[in-house]
Amino acid sequence: MRSGIGRSLVGIRGLRDGELEALLDLARALRARVRAGETLSELRGKTVALLFLEPSTRTRFSFEVAARRLGAECLVFSSDSSSTVKGETLLDTTRVLRSLGTDCIVVRHQASGVPHQLARRLELPLINAGDGINEHPTQALLDALTLQDRFGSLEGRTVAIVGDIRHSRVARSNCYALPRLGARVLVAGPGTLCPDELAALGVEVRHGIDEVLADADAVMMLRIQRERLGAGMVPSDAEYMRLYGLDAPRMSRLRPGAVVMHPAPMNRGVEIHDDVADSTASVIFRQAENGVFVRMAALLRAMQPGGLS
Amino acid sequence: MRSGIGRSLVGIRGLRDGELEALLDLARALRARVRAGETLSELRGKTVALLFLEPSTRTRFSFEVAARRLGAECLVFSSDSSSTVKGETLLDTTRVLRSLGTDCIVVRHQASGVPHQLARRLELPLINAGDGINEHPTQALLDALTLQDRFGSLEGRTVAIVGDIRHSRVARSNCYALPRLGARVLVAGPGTLCPDELAALGVEVRHGIDEVLADADAVMMLRIQRERLGAGMVPSDAEYMRLYGLDAPRMSRLRPGAVVMHPAPMNRGVEIHDDVADSTASVIFRQAENGVFVRMAALLRAMQPGGLS
Amino acid sequence: MRSGIGRSLVGIRGLRDGELEALLDLARALRARVRAGETLSELRGKTVALLFLEPSTRTRFSFEVAARRLGAECLVFSSDSSSTVKGETLLDTTRVLRSLGTDCIVVRHQASGVPHQLARRLELPLINAGDGINEHPTQALLDALTLQDRFGSLEGRTVAIVGDIRHSRVARSNCYALPRLGARVLVAGPGTLCPDELAALGVEVRHGIDEVLADADAVMMLRIQRERLGAGMVPSDAEYMRLYGLDAPRMSRLRPGAVVMHPAPMNRGVEIHDDVADSTASVIFRQAENGVFVRMAALLRAMQPGGLS
Repeated sequence: MRSGIGRSLVGIRGLRDGELEALLDLARALRARVRAGETLSELRGKTVALLFLEPSTRTRFSFEVAARRLGAECLVFSSDSSSTVKGETLLDTTRVLRSLGTDCIVVRHQASGVPHQLARRLELPLINAGDGINEHPTQALLDALTLQDRFGSLEGRTVAIVGDIRHSRVARSNCYALPRLGARVLVAGPGTLCPDELAALGVEVRHGIDEVLADADAVMMLRIQRERLGAGMVPSDAEYMRLYGLDAPRMSRLRPGAVVMHPAPMNRGVEIHDDVADSTASVIFRQAENGVFVRMAALLRAMQPGGLS
Repeated sequence: MRSGIGRSLVGIRGLRDGELEALLDLARALRARVRAGETLSELRGKTVALLFLEPSTRTRFSFEVAARRLGAECLVFSSDSSSTVKGETLLDTTRVLRSLGTDCIVVRHQASGVPHQLARRLELPLINAGDGINEHPTQALLDALTLQDRFGSLEGRTVAIVGDIRHSRVARSNCYALPRLGARVLVAGPGTLCPDELAALGVEVRHGIDEVLADADAVMMLRIQRERLGAGMVPSDAEYMRLYGLDAPRMSRLRPGAVVMHPAPMNRGVEIHDDVADSTASVIFRQAENGVFVRMAALLRAMQPGGLS
Repeated sequence: MRSGIGRSLVGIRGLRDGELEALLDLARALRARVRAGETLSELRGKTVALLFLEPSTRTRFSFEVAARRLGAECLVFSSDSSSTVKGETLLDTTRVLRSLGTDCIVVRHQASGVPHQLARRLELPLINAGDGINEHPTQALLDALTLQDRFGSLEGRTVAIVGDIRHSRVARSNCYALPRLGARVLVAGPGTLCPDELAALGVEVRHGIDEVLADADAVMMLRIQRERLGAGMVPSDAEYMRLYGLDAPRMSRLRPGAVVMHPAPMNRGVEIHDDVADSTASVIFRQAENGVFVRMAALLRAMQPGGLS
């Protein structure tokens, strides 16, 4: 999505050829400058509105840090319920934010598609910070950056995603991103949460975790929503750990040099064991670190379209 | 209200002769400087506490942007309930804020009169960001600025305010402000929400929307509170739109060159139709834009009394 | 608690010899520089995450002002409920914050011991902003600073703490701090809230307020939790005021030159009468003022360990 006023990042799916790679290159370049101790000011004088209409601490903080590192100011709205701020009203709200002098909107919303609807009609660049079960594009970017840090090119590499694929915007965005970068994606999880129809995303559906581990250079464990446990969709905590959780014995079956990922927050003892989360194979906190750099890239792309290819 | 430590803005009603006009002139002067690309720093080193004890996104963001554009820092408290912060405790809270080094308090509260009570006793300038059904003075200032932008002098101009006049602090502040600037104010709405006693505010009460449109240079549509719909005070959504909503046919009856205003957020399809909200006669988003400048003026007046006439 | 990455402030109890005095000296030095109009920048480029998992306005604002006065940026998370952020998840959250570039965590939590658990495992300095009924170390520091402002050395001085000692982290931290600075501490309150076992803290337990006043150079009135009133633990509002509240007649029995303190927010008319709260003997708002300086000291100590003795 491109316009005269900048480029929105609504999803990985909507990125054109080369845009995904360009964002990752930009993130790496920004990271190098930050690590060299440089103070960046590309977005000085700009204002970013963060509209988090679904609870979030980590992602919201990550965007705040990213915006400030580029010199921008943040307006933060964070709410546990989006009941009062939806549909037309949200579009009007973002238009009001534009009138107040906001230069970019970052939005998280519980309903799939809301960022897309907004971006089509709003004369302001928008970044999707997660919408329902649809996409979480900056998460896929930080996952890709972390994988490239480890493996260089992802050509010929296999990434297994395990858990509630069906309801995961993280999985969905990665299913769009990783194949474009050359990786093969396998998904596994309980049948109710990982139905065969997911093959339409261009990934291989295998169900059992033990069927994917031996082929994987990286395994991405998804957070299981506790409200789905024991509700007929998945078994209890302990049962889930036994059937789909990643523990040390399972980790030992991964390819040599493989890494373990998780978008956080982790349910330790449910989908991931402490021994794994805190192992040297875990890149979970590097993912968080890279999150700031890909969000800096997304913000810079959104507000300085002229400066990018 | 004047004191050695600055000037509070509790309501339009309390402004002395010339103060309303001075605030509008100051807002225009600040707007010109911002539009010329000037970086302002009049309030550098100052801290403004924003106490929003009733939900608000737009007005809170507007004050934040205004404060930062003048170089001030903000402390933001935003709560859905004021149950734990009321009466004496709120006065003590503001005194504590003063002790922390706060230079100005902006307060929104669900109870009418709270800002007035605080301002009488607090040794710190205070700006009312809306109190119950009493006043919302910066809203009236931005409405007046927007009308002056369109018409120059308001002498001989007629403004119609339509909707729930009785419970509207926006209407009340405008009923104080607009006549002082030379405008005639007509109000209309369901009898339960627009009783004849409102004439005591110095406005003409007419009830039917069709009785005010032909005389109006500007029509200000108020947000209808959905909890009042169907509760005996006003009819259903559709019925309200039919009886009091502004649609294109009704808009065509306004005086030539008339403008349509709304304090936002709009209930599209209830008090205002999409065709009207998005028409060229609508100045709704200009109101939002002007809101920042009048709030800059109010903050500057509060914290730099020496610099103002 | 000391580590290569700075020094946490989990409680007064854990401070080693000289550390309490050093923090107070640092707070005084910072105060002198601020009052001389100096702009401080010791923490420029640093980021402090404020995790308030229990409602707070005053303390959170105080930390924000303190951090900014030293040039640091703040990330603020404030929630009415910690239900979704506890145990292991909170440790992981703080680790993620570290990955985002956070340099120090300030945490308030309803559960006693949480800051201690976090600080033991987190590779980042942490400041306890109040945990359950355990400690509130910066409150004790500001109380001590305020008492030293008034009396110089606390040797030979007697401080009476009155109210719900049992559930008060303020009382507990003061019971650790004040004796180390030379003061004698007396505590009084209803038997259910001030049991004899508190003598284990090294203080004298006397129960009746009238038994402690005549000996006191300072009386610290604690906030009574309204949910405990009339619930069998303490009598009604009026009865509490009569039995344990500080009014003017009682205040007149204090030693000459004695001061009245309260950690705020006050329940006026319950534990403290207006005549007392607003009297010249009250140093309640000086406590708030000093809070900023002791928090500046704690933040500086946490993030610049090399610069301190």
